[in-house]
Amino acid sequence: MAVTLLALFRRPEGGDDALQTFWRRYREEHMPLIEKVPGLRGAEVWNVSQNYAGDDLVAVTEMHFEDHEALAAAMASDEMRAAGRTLREIAPGLLTLVALEPSGT
Amino acid sequence: MAVTLLALFRRPEGGDDALQTFWRRYREEHMPLIEKVPGLRGAEVWNVSQNYAGDDLVAVTEMHFEDHEALAAAMASDEMRAAGRTLREIAPGLLTLVALEPSGT
Repeated sequence: MAVTLLALFRRPEGGDDALQTFWRRYREEHMPLIEKVPGLRGAEVWNVSQNYAGDDLVAVTEMHFEDHEALAAAMASDEMRAAGRTLREIAPGLLTLVALEPSGT
Repeated sequence: MAVTLLALFRRPEGGDDALQTFWRRYREEHMPLIEKVPGLRGAEVWNVSQNYAGDDLVAVTEMHFEDHEALAAAMASDEMRAAGRTLREIAPGLLTLVALEPSGT
């Protein structure tokens, strides 16, 4: 069963300059590392255009994997560890990271 | 440009019973109301199978609209207001709701 890794980013402190720096480093430094993660089938980066309720999020990324085993292998890979290290610089304390599977109804 | 409305739910207090009640009411009461919202092109409900970092989320729903105008009309509709009322009972204070558009790179 396909699994989606969902990364959610809260707004950094420091106004528009901090947000622009986040986006630039996210695209130029972090995503190229994510694209090297073994087993990744595709990724989409979204800009939050409106906040209606709850956390003040600014960015959302979906990363797709074939199944739980592929995700587990990806999470344990050197490439994902390198990507994680950049995030701790780019977005310290701002990340929520969860795995999603279709909800059985 | 297509727009996605993303709903994120934190874990309710009250352990497994509270979580099961949330899911039952979400599926049986809330989603049937969402499916009536004008302009909705489709929706997917996801179960959070693993939390790696940040907020303790349990459920994620994506709702798709043709463009910002369709989303704005949907948000102002009686159907969405009715759906919002059920959420304030089912998941009080647990919701983050944002609109997403593809990130220009």
